[in-house]
Order: sequence, then structure tokens, then C-alpha cells
Amino acid sequence: MSFAFRILGSSSALPTSIRFPSAYVVQMHERIFLIDCGEGAQIQLRRYKIKLGRLNHILISHIHGDHTFGLFGLLSSFNLIGREHDLHIYCPPDLESILETHFEMFNIQLNYSLVYHHMNCKQSSIIFEDEKIIVDSFPVKHRIPTCGFLFREKPLPRSLRKDMIENYDIPIKNRPEIKMGADFITRSGEKISNEILTTDPPAPRSLAYCTDTLYHRGLVTKIRGVNLLFHESTFIEDEASRAKETYHSTARQAAMIAREAKVKQLVLGHFSARYKDLNPLLSEAREVFSETELAEDGKIFMIEH
Amino acid sequence: MSFAFRILGSSSALPTSIRFPSAYVVQMHERIFLIDCGEGAQIQLRRYKIKLGRLNHILISHIHGDHTFGLFGLLSSFNLIGREHDLHIYCPPDLESILETHFEMFNIQLNYSLVYHHMNCKQSSIIFEDEKIIVDSFPVKHRIPTCGFLFREKPLPRSLRKDMIENYDIPIKNRPEIKMGADFITRSGEKISNEILTTDPPAPRSLAYCTDTLYHRGLVTKIRGVNLLFHESTFIEDEASRAKETYHSTARQAAMIAREAKVKQLVLGHFSARYKDLNPLLSEAREVFSETELAEDGKIFMIEH
Repeated sequence: MSFAFRILGSSSALPTSIRFPSAYVVQMHERIFLIDCGEGAQIQLRRYKIKLGRLNHILISHIHGDHTFGLFGLLSSFNLIGREHDLHIYCPPDLESILETHFEMFNIQLNYSLVYHHMNCKQSSIIFEDEKIIVDSFPVKHRIPTCGFLFREKPLPRSLRKDMIENYDIPIKNRPEIKMGADFITRSGEKISNEILTTDPPAPRSLAYCTDTLYHRGLVTKIRGVNLLFHESTFIEDEASRAKETYHSTARQAAMIAREAKVKQLVLGHFSARYKDLNPLLSEAREVFSETELAEDGKIFMIEH
Repeated sequence: MSFAFRILGSSSALPTSIRFPSAYVVQMHERIFLIDCGEGAQIQLRRYKIKLGRLNHILISHIHGDHTFGLFGLLSSFNLIGREHDLHIYCPPDLESILETHFEMFNIQLNYSLVYHHMNCKQSSIIFEDEKIIVDSFPVKHRIPTCGFLFREKPLPRSLRKDMIENYDIPIKNRPEIKMGADFITRSGEKISNEILTTDPPAPRSLAYCTDTLYHRGLVTKIRGVNLLFHESTFIEDEASRAKETYHSTARQAAMIAREAKVKQLVLGHFSARYKDLNPLLSEAREVFSETELAEDGKIFMIEH
């Protein structure tokens, strides 16, 4: 299953000429999730050729303009291109009345159903689950209720060894249960242990999204060992007091969370527009956690086994 | 006085990967007017280095999302960058309650005053005037009340001939009235006719903005002889019936208006996202009116004497 994280907008509250406000796409095989929807998200979705018809799930971390103002245009555009299938939106409860008031004011009647899933940003909850993946929301620490998101693959079935299939002439009907961990009884009544027949499947992959948030060690338990952590780093460590005041993090703080949670890779984003050069943020983070990269509009991070 | 028309967004309702929704800047010397404010206008303003602090006037032609959804982000960003001086917004009356409801829903308190100037889109009116320029709004024909805009320089004073100043030894105090058309009486009582002393000033320049609108010959009187006419051409002539249905124009129709109004230059814009190649629109317009150009995001048209 392909598993990718695409940056659409890596700026914080103020966009720059090269960085849009917050918007990110998580693609897990055929599933497409848009996380946050800052102004211009629909333009970026088109620019990076994300198929709008296949986008059925939008997750909104919190109700600040730089994470939501792109919804107005995107939801209208879905109407204009003739969308009829449901669109699911996972968000703090107040967003529903905001959007419905907006549609009323602009006299917009949607041709499709907008299905609201109200999140409780005070506790961790499963907000989406199907046969292959689970998405959790969990609390981060911002000025207003804000959720982080954790995308996890479900454990894969064990891999059945081809040589063993031949060796023991294992019928097709028995194979699914063996992949789930069962032993095999041969026609002669011999019990072959599952360990002999199968190998471990690839470990499930995972991605965590944490913005907007203060440096908050409470996150570590939730995101431990993820393959990719996206963590905001609005400021550089020299401006740690400004970060604290505005409920944001520094690049160094993001790296400290990554190190403590033993994640595989850290991606920094949600940069203040004041930084023309982000290399100082990257450097200070890498001093703490070497596997760090900078978000950049359009960039895609593949999450491999 | 420099006089320029800058395209920020040349698409119609749906943006494309290279065309933002409607937003245009008219720069008349130190005055900056933003006309319409589709999603992403603030990003384009930054990209093309328009000084946000000097933008004090926003004109909104009508209340459709592709002309207004960028206001939410832009007005918030003004707050974030510490704007304190007034911002004037010229718009159909309903926009005021829409914006005020929006600020309330997002808990946004502006640090600056937003001064609303309600336009009546049923009649032509002066909406802005200072010592050098006049801006009119006038009705165009769309599904909802919609205004076009006409920017005009006021007539310049006549040019006083240097050789005549020397010849008749014209004192400095007399010069302003001569520039306004007065004759000059020499010390010996001789009356020198203004025609001898002055030459005609350059003709005042003008620009008209017409979108969104049906093909509407009633516009001709209002925009006659302008230096630059921006006229929407959402569709190609083959789709004239679709244009009529949706209260839009074709490229050929825009050119017919330009020809009849004897304008100097026509700029086509507000293109439907369905056209990957706009050359057929340009060709059909040029058949009718040769001085036609296509709008393109970022492009600037200088209006010369």
C-alpha cells in the first residue's frame, strides 16, 4: 500500500509568496485525506494533481482562519464540478454552524451531503476506521481546542512461505487462517507450527500530525515510534518565549518531541512568515534529531516499510 | 502619473493550477485599488510585491464566492501585520453583514476600521474622487446585482509654453490660472490669449472593468473611448448559449463591445477553467477588435497617454 504525506501549505498564519497557509494531504493507497484547509488549498490540490473526486475526508485540526479559510472555496468548487457523493468532515463542533451560516449567507445549496463528524479535542478517539487503516484524533495544546491526528495501518496478515505451500501441499482454503496465525495439520495428521510456515509481515506504518501546539511532552506517548512525525515549528529557539506566548513550538522543541518519541522521521512546518531562510530552524532541530526535514509546498514524503 | 492594471486572478468560478479566481489591481500613481478579491488574492498580492500597507481601497463587483472568498484571509492578515489605518470597501450592501458575521464567528476583532461604502448596482455613481481621479460604479448585467467600474483621470492643467513664459516674462503667481485657461495681461495692458501661451495637456486616461456580465450593449455609452477595457469572456462564441444562460459573455461579444465603444485596448479575462488553450478565444476576439490581449495571472498592462 502506498503511504504518502504531501505538503500543500507550509506557512503559518500569514502566507508568503511561496508558502500557502496550512493544508496537507495524506494518501494511503486509494484513500485521500486532506488535513486542514487554509486559503488556496483547492489551488494547490489542482497544482499537485490530487484527484478531487477521490477526496472524501477532510480533517480540521482547529478553527483558526489559516487552517479553514480554504474550505469556502473548496466546498463550492465541489458543487460546481458536480460532486454528488458524500464528503466527510472531521472537525471541532463549532465548524458546522460556521459553514452552514456561510452557505446561507452566500445562498449556496450543496448538491452533495457534507457529513460532519464532531471531534472532542479533549481526549483521544478513533475518528475513522476501515479494514486497513485507523485514524485517531488526540489533544494538542493550543489557545483553542485543537486536535492532532495519527494515521496507522492495521497489522498486515503474516506472509505465507511459498516453499512451505509446496512442501506441505497446503490447500487454498487453509491459507487465510494460516496467514492469521493458525498452524496447519497435514493429511497424515502432522501439526506444522505457524512459525515454520510464515514469516513476519512488514510492520504497520504510521504518521502523526501535530499543529498548532505548544511544546507538550504529553504527546510522546501518543506518537511513539511513528514513521513520520509532522510537528509544527513556527519559531526558532531564540524566540521560545514568543512561541510559548502564542501557543506554538520552536524547531528545537519539535525535535525534542521527535527524539523522545523515537520516531523515524521528523518534518517541520507551519513556519512563521518572518523567516526567509529556514536553514537555521533545520540546523537547530538536526542537532537534537538528525532525521529532520523541512516542509516545502508541493513536497511529498513517502512512508516506507 | 503611472497608471497600471495588474492581473492577480484571471479564472472564473473554478481556479486552475495557473489561474486564481478574480482579483485585479489598479495602480494610479500612489493610489492602489484592489478590484474583487477571490481566494488567494493575498498570496498574489505578496507574489507581485504590491505593498499591502498602501492598499486602502477594495472594490467588490458582486457577492459571488469567486470574487469575495479572498477577503476573509486578506482582512485577517491586515490585522496580523498590525494595520491600524482605515480600509475602505466599496461593495453591494449585503457584504457588510456577511463580513461582520464572519468576524463574529471566527472571533476576529479588527485593529483597524473597515469603512463600508454601499454601492447601488442599479445606477451609475461616483464612488471615489480626489484631486486627480474619479472612480464610478455602473450597472452590468449578471444574475445578481453587479457593478462595473470606471477609473478616470481628471483633466490635467494646460501646459504653459516655456518660450512664452520668457517672451512675456510671466510672473509665477499668474501661471496657475493660465494653466487653468486664463489669458494673460502684460504690464503694458496687452491681452495675450491663452491659446498662444499654452498647449493642450495629455488627454485624461481611463480604464473600465466589466465582469461578470452578459453581452450588454448598454455598457457602450458608459465606457466609450476608454484606454483599457477589461471585459469578461468566460466562454468562446460556440458556447454563446451557455454564456447567456449563466449571464456571462463570449470573447467575441467582449470584442463587439470594445469595437462599438471605440476603446483603445481590450483585455479579456474571467476564463472558464474548461479552456486549457485560450488562443481560440483570443483569435475570435481579434477578428472583431484587433487590439485585444489575454489576461494572465501576474501580467501588468501599463496605460499610457
